Amino acid sequence: MAVIDINADLGEGFGIWELGDDLALLDVITSANVACGFHAGDPLIMRRVCAAAAERGVAIGAQVSYRDLAGFGRREMDVAPPELTAEVLYQIAALDGIARAEGGRVSYVKPHGALYNRISRDAVQAAAVAEAVRAYDATLPLLTLPGSAVHEVAQGLTVVAECFADRAYTPSGGLVSRREPGAVVHDADAVVQRAVRMAVEGTVVAVDGTEVSLKARSICVHGDTPGAVALAQSVRSALSGAGVALEPFA
Amino acid sequence: MAVIDINADLGEGFGIWELGDDLALLDVITSANVACGFHAGDPLIMRRVCAAAAERGVAIGAQVSYRDLAGFGRREMDVAPPELTAEVLYQIAALDGIARAEGGRVSYVKPHGALYNRISRDAVQAAAVAEAVRAYDATLPLLTLPGSAVHEVAQGLTVVAECFADRAYTPSGGLVSRREPGAVVHDADAVVQRAVRMAVEGTVVAVDGTEVSLKARSICVHGDTPGAVALAQSVRSALSGAGVALEPFA
Amino acid sequence: MAVIDINADLGEGFGIWELGDDLALLDVITSANVACGFHAGDPLIMRRVCAAAAERGVAIGAQVSYRDLAGFGRREMDVAPPELTAEVLYQIAALDGIARAEGGRVSYVKPHGALYNRISRDAVQAAAVAEAVRAYDATLPLLTLPGSAVHEVAQGLTVVAECFADRAYTPSGGLVSRREPGAVVHDADAVVQRAVRMAVEGTVVAVDGTEVSLKARSICVHGDTPGAVALAQSVRSALSGAGVALEPFA
Amino acid sequence: MAVIDINADLGEGFGIWELGDDLALLDVITSANVACGFHAGDPLIMRRVCAAAAERGVAIGAQVSYRDLAGFGRREMDVAPPELTAEVLYQIAALDGIARAEGGRVSYVKPHGALYNRISRDAVQAAAVAEAVRAYDATLPLLTLPGSAVHEVAQGLTVVAECFADRAYTPSGGLVSRREPGAVVHDADAVVQRAVRMAVEGTVVAVDGTEVSLKARSICVHGDTPGAVALAQSVRSALSGAGVALEPFA
Repeated sequence: MAVIDINADLGEGFGIWELGDDLALLDVITSANVACGFHAGDPLIMRRVCAAAAERGVAIGAQVSYRDLAGFGRREMDVAPPELTAEVLYQIAALDGIARAEGGRVSYVKPHGALYNRISRDAVQAAAVAEAVRAYDATLPLLTLPGSAVHEVAQGLTVVAECFADRAYTPSGGLVSRREPGAVVHDADAVVQRAVRMAVEGTVVAVDGTEVSLKARSICVHGDTPGAVALAQSVRSALSGAGVALEPFA
Repeated sequence: MAVIDINADLGEGFGIWELGDDLALLDVITSANVACGFHAGDPLIMRRVCAAAAERGVAIGAQVSYRDLAGFGRREMDVAPPELTAEVLYQIAALDGIARAEGGRVSYVKPHGALYNRISRDAVQAAAVAEAVRAYDATLPLLTLPGSAVHEVAQGLTVVAECFADRAYTPSGGLVSRREPGAVVHDADAVVQRAVRMAVEGTVVAVDGTEVSLKARSICVHGDTPGAVALAQSVRSALSGAGVALEPFA
Repeated sequence: MAVIDINADLGEGFGIWELGDDLALLDVITSANVACGFHAGDPLIMRRVCAAAAERGVAIGAQVSYRDLAGFGRREMDVAPPELTAEVLYQIAALDGIARAEGGRVSYVKPHGALYNRISRDAVQAAAVAEAVRAYDATLPLLTLPGSAVHEVAQGLTVVAECFADRAYTPSGGLVSRREPGAVVHDADAVVQRAVRMAVEGTVVAVDGTEVSLKARSICVHGDTPGAVALAQSVRSALSGAGVALEPFA
Repeated sequence: MAVIDINADLGEGFGIWELGDDLALLDVITSANVACGFHAGDPLIMRRVCAAAAERGVAIGAQVSYRDLAGFGRREMDVAPPELTAEVLYQIAALDGIARAEGGRVSYVKPHGALYNRISRDAVQAAAVAEAVRAYDATLPLLTLPGSAVHEVAQGLTVVAECFADRAYTPSGGLVSRREPGAVVHDADAVVQRAVRMAVEGTVVAVDGTEVSLKARSICVHGDTPGAVALAQSVRSALSGAGVALEPFA
């Protein structure tokens, strides 16, 4: 029987500002990537999201980021490795302490935005992130892109790949860059069908029509654009309808 | 045999900026109040201070603060209780995770600056701080002023009082306000003698000449002014010379 | 002929986060209180709001605040006067430079949130704000509450009072505290009628039924709650229908 | 008669933290690059430095930076051009308003740290910075590295090159990278002699022994390392002794 996890970014408001519909997403996903205060999220939001996730049995992941509230962590930064390690360690620890106070715990780490992209190709920053996870708890898996440079530097850490039902893939299994036309699949039915195929067969049809094998244990969905939550709900329903078990990977 | 702890604030730089001589102080004190990033301190500084403290067997305390880098946490803020609780919880958790990665752990909590002062008379904010400690680890003692409002709201938490060898006391055992003349004892010999008396006899001579009983288990020393480290060293030597055992309170 | 200004807070997003509908409000108001980056607003948002305001002939005011993004400037802070003066001066200057680059200019100053409230009763902080305005441009009026402590310390600055059609008034012309029942008028028709009466007759009916005289040259409307923009549009229409001229006060 | 400007970074503390000896440097330099709050500097520091500079007739430049207090603006960031333009505009405007309140004004712009380096080779970010200067005041010169990409995108702006007496040069007039051995000239006498030669002859001896022509109108000195101020004083004395006129370039 096929098993898959559904993950999404949560807790990405800050102070008075809100983003996305956390409570609606918590009924769809099995893993919540909770912002830790560096690109979004504040301690009170973190507490509320962790409480709601713990109550529903949704796994809590530390969505660690560059320190960049103004840019929502979407701008690559040349942070020196010792600083990056310390910053990631700080974020994991802060969220884990809050999660435990709410009856949960951090069970994985997912880098956010520019850091996620950077460590998929920059082995130095990837190693710095991996060192932080190892320093905090070497049993925590890192959720990242298939083929990410993180794999090369993980040194014993568990690295879990995720996939995106709404993104076009290259024949080699990479994502088509967002700068290319057709990078994002906008048709909701197509997204749902791709998600089911990813979960059941472990494959996706690449932009050139070839079938590509994916080894993703989690599907990433979004909640911060109009219609996103409804689409995520459709994906979940279709997966359940196809007999796929929805379970946290961690 | 008399036993006392010596505590000081450490890790109060930020990024490129330095403050105080952390390594020198670590040879004097038995408990380090480590800044957690809200009024000072960044993750890399926190990591280094925790490593150095753990190596020397110095106890690590979470020096929690209002979120106020620009004002060094010295400005009172009307933070709503749920926010304050979450912010304090976040800081304790972040530091504890870092301390554990360095072979130590957070063994107490000491509020900083304006928060320290505010909760000595504001039971609402005091209760919010106490709730954070309870949510994280109800066995962690809170280090604070004798007579602080924290005592009234601690509800089972351990509250430890500290004393100040360089501050003048009122007949009722409170500190003379810094706005009053004579609030600070500047004579180094007098400071050293007061420290010994506080540790050995548990008393101090108040501004009106009466002898006041103190129940302080820790003496607070400073490291951020010229001569402060040398004075702290003199205090430590005198305490040892008087046969006082220097041990962390936590 | 009666003349009134309508002011509202604009540009209160930050980075990815949005708040309120700035463009819709710009068609309603005659004066835009533009956030300057300390409680909300970032340079790009400031630029866009100033460009849109200048294009429509809407006056631009510097909505200066405590430095408190996490609390949206809603928490009182004990900022020392020289710091507060410098911070307010910095904000006015930053916004004015941006406004001028977009063909406008800052023509008044309106403190935000907790600073607005604080300086209505704290003459020391009020004087610090007034000094900043004087240092930048002593011809800029300060928009504030009637009876504010600012009046006492303005020393030659122009202080302009505003009124609130959706707030209940005490017999002495002050606002009923939000902690009291009935502090906010929720009925839209009543708000509209009160606005017209404020503009045409310069009066409001206080909570005890007495008629109170107001000397407000501006009505404050809101845009950040559901229905707020529609209500503001109704207020504007009613004022125009009653023959009131809508003109910036500055 | 040879004429040169001496510039240095000032106002680079933040809140409680200090960096460098601003007052000592103000007696050495003719142009002060004043931090604007994004990598260092706060409004009160800015005010004090501008007052002291204006009093001494030292020119005030806006030392604009990435928004990065934690990294002191030393980490390259992929900031989108419209954001970068707005952020630089904001900083120039804030400092200019403060400078004018103190009897001075911003008379040039010098990007700081990673932004300075980035725009010397990235024409996109360079154009974004240039656009900000143009939007604020197209007569303000930009102080930057000889051969910087800024020259290509300046479109009518004045670009002024500076030189470094304590840095080794390549035969093509570029700086030897700090990662190379010998990048920094540590011998004080050599630094002084190089400064005089730069000012009088407009040349420097490159690492391969060839003489390179520099077209620098300003020499950059430092104040934040031990002995730096004394070295800057020696440079100034030697320049005066060699009959070089010391004048702001702007």
